[in-house]
Amino acid sequence: MSDKTKKRVVIAGMGFGGLRAANVLAGSNLELLMVDRNNYHLFQPLLYQVATAGLEEEAIAYPLRGLTRNWKNASFLLAEISGIDLSGKILQTDAGNISYDYLIIAAGSRTNFFGMESVEANAFDLKRLDQAEDLRNHILMMFERASRETNRLLRKALLTFVIVGGGPTGVEFAGALRELIVYVLSKDHPGISADETRIILIEAGDSLLNAMPVELREYACGKLRSMGVDVMLDSQVVGATVESVELKDGKNISTYTLLWAAGVAAAKIAGNIHDVVRGAGGRLLVQPDLTINGHPEIFVVGDMACCLVDGMPLPMMAPVATQQGGYAARAILARESGMGLPPFHYVDKGVMATIGRSSAVAAAAGFRIRGYFAWLAWLLLHLYYLIGFRNRLVVMMNWTYSYWFQERQVRLITAKKRRAVSI
Amino acid sequence: MSDKTKKRVVIAGMGFGGLRAANVLAGSNLELLMVDRNNYHLFQPLLYQVATAGLEEEAIAYPLRGLTRNWKNASFLLAEISGIDLSGKILQTDAGNISYDYLIIAAGSRTNFFGMESVEANAFDLKRLDQAEDLRNHILMMFERASRETNRLLRKALLTFVIVGGGPTGVEFAGALRELIVYVLSKDHPGISADETRIILIEAGDSLLNAMPVELREYACGKLRSMGVDVMLDSQVVGATVESVELKDGKNISTYTLLWAAGVAAAKIAGNIHDVVRGAGGRLLVQPDLTINGHPEIFVVGDMACCLVDGMPLPMMAPVATQQGGYAARAILARESGMGLPPFHYVDKGVMATIGRSSAVAAAAGFRIRGYFAWLAWLLLHLYYLIGFRNRLVVMMNWTYSYWFQERQVRLITAKKRRAVSI
Repeated sequence: MSDKTKKRVVIAGMGFGGLRAANVLAGSNLELLMVDRNNYHLFQPLLYQVATAGLEEEAIAYPLRGLTRNWKNASFLLAEISGIDLSGKILQTDAGNISYDYLIIAAGSRTNFFGMESVEANAFDLKRLDQAEDLRNHILMMFERASRETNRLLRKALLTFVIVGGGPTGVEFAGALRELIVYVLSKDHPGISADETRIILIEAGDSLLNAMPVELREYACGKLRSMGVDVMLDSQVVGATVESVELKDGKNISTYTLLWAAGVAAAKIAGNIHDVVRGAGGRLLVQPDLTINGHPEIFVVGDMACCLVDGMPLPMMAPVATQQGGYAARAILARESGMGLPPFHYVDKGVMATIGRSSAVAAAAGFRIRGYFAWLAWLLLHLYYLIGFRNRLVVMMNWTYSYWFQERQVRLITAKKRRAVSI
Repeated sequence: MSDKTKKRVVIAGMGFGGLRAANVLAGSNLELLMVDRNNYHLFQPLLYQVATAGLEEEAIAYPLRGLTRNWKNASFLLAEISGIDLSGKILQTDAGNISYDYLIIAAGSRTNFFGMESVEANAFDLKRLDQAEDLRNHILMMFERASRETNRLLRKALLTFVIVGGGPTGVEFAGALRELIVYVLSKDHPGISADETRIILIEAGDSLLNAMPVELREYACGKLRSMGVDVMLDSQVVGATVESVELKDGKNISTYTLLWAAGVAAAKIAGNIHDVVRGAGGRLLVQPDLTINGHPEIFVVGDMACCLVDGMPLPMMAPVATQQGGYAARAILARESGMGLPPFHYVDKGVMATIGRSSAVAAAAGFRIRGYFAWLAWLLLHLYYLIGFRNRLVVMMNWTYSYWFQERQVRLITAKKRRAVSI
């Protein structure tokens, strides 16, 4: 498999950044090795729909070997990355050591609990496919459990859902959960009315979606509130138990469901790469060409990279990762043909978030849209960026089905409770 | 929820038998309570396609509350059944005791390892949805593991798959696995050729599919062999370890994958129902009207029932369960209106099994067909019996996709290895 005459590019992590880099390097005269701990690329922006029974897991994952089949210069290794030997140019994994000529680090991010151990121990988070399935199982189980509970207070706690973080994940999840309850679960459980359930969205700042223009923030907040979501701004969570969430002002909320969507940090591997300056969240500081200081052969892209523009790091989101992945790959190709590239320049194509049925907000290129057309744009763009013809079909079918029938058929409690709550 | 003026029918288990009974009782003037440990009905005949990456889990499961929504007299309880108090007319579950006027026991079957503990500890079996996902993850992992293994013997063991039991499950799984390897996995892994993999189907008797006419048995066996499956007849497995299978004649096969499909027994709950005569596999002996002796209010249907016809028990298969479930429900309705029903009579509609692409066998009403048309009939009948419009669409789409593109996109290694093999 290894061709000594060819230089080897290793991509560590096959999220949005790694995938774009691989796409650019496919068919080149470099040997390409893609490494990931999963055998699929995950379309994270739709993870919240898996957690709210709108999509099956498989619809948002694409098998990576489906790509290497068609790329003669590419191969794939399923492995967990443990470290990097910078001077020896070796990537260390649980499947052995891999030497590289160029390395693109694109290992993404993990949830940041800011050191609050009680929250980390008791909260759900939404980064991985199995976490989305766990959360879906748990939400459905809370309704099953509540439907036969006679203790009024316990029942109320079972039907209270707390989401922390007013960014896109928190907002989209809160809206989708409210719709799951109103359109589906309250009909499934004749004894439970949507009014006795409670969804609380907690945000430390004074507005939701703070990357958006003010009018869209206010629209999103008003829309969520009109749907029945309890939005608490300027509030902070400081602790949690299995059955409660503690706020900074001393209040306690009885709940068995806490979703933490209030922070991300660089993937753990960033901590094992020594002698590199770090930014907030442990992200690796990169040069204007996305390499790390003193190592022109190592590029860092996506959530792991702290790429300063006018002194501010670029946000941790898919479009940044995609553009950086593409840049790193082109920079390698350019260097191999003896040329150079101008520094990385991020093209801000805008931000968007969906709130619910026929309702979203989008800000791009000076335009600000909200409501039905923003929602339609959101649907089409997500279908477009989703990978694989079959996945697009399945997702489109599920969306059409949900829209017409107000049904979500993926409301299955699948695995035996991997995360058991004994109540 | 409970209406004292109405008599209550409890259905314990919502497989094929329970589901048909519920369908018949829906809309009647009896109170209907459906109990299952899962919140979905599972279409077991397609479980092997989930295990071979052909279908997503969600496509063969239908949420039971999707039914009770439309049936005013019906409700659902998610609970594990632990026992029955025959004299008190109480069903005991982990969600509390439930009184009944009529009880339909339809809890199905479990895998029968015939007391071989080493096999039970090391074999996969295919009864539940999570087992199918585990097996899929495991098969895909064996290929990932083998693709970077240099030890020739270990690599051979990783690529050897042993299936025990030449009934429909064993035959269908062996065929589907062979096609997964030939059409998909050997292309995904350029370093692994289909020829170096080995699928061994072991059957204790002298032919496969012994419920079929002889010529179809021979066709199925010949077809599997021509596809590259190693069919071993008159062979018996007597033990297993993580890395090997031991045969009665002393031979040892090095393998990390053993699927046990060689026997079923009544679900465990059958052992907790006292004073009832049992047949083979712990099945409860029923009267000609499917009730148990001395308890005209208790019906047993499907795999749990030992229903003798001319001294032989009816086979443990879906059509028997479905017809019995319907009969039990009609018998209850008849009794409530002061009438009686003639004894249960099984109408044998035939048997069928698919072997691979464009190849199946079917025997019905004196006809015996094989090859393409049997395969087409198999596809259409399975689509027809699958529950839910959305599921039919997803399954049809997956089948069409696989047939055209010879691809199986659901080849994902999803959950963290719940069943870890340390090699």
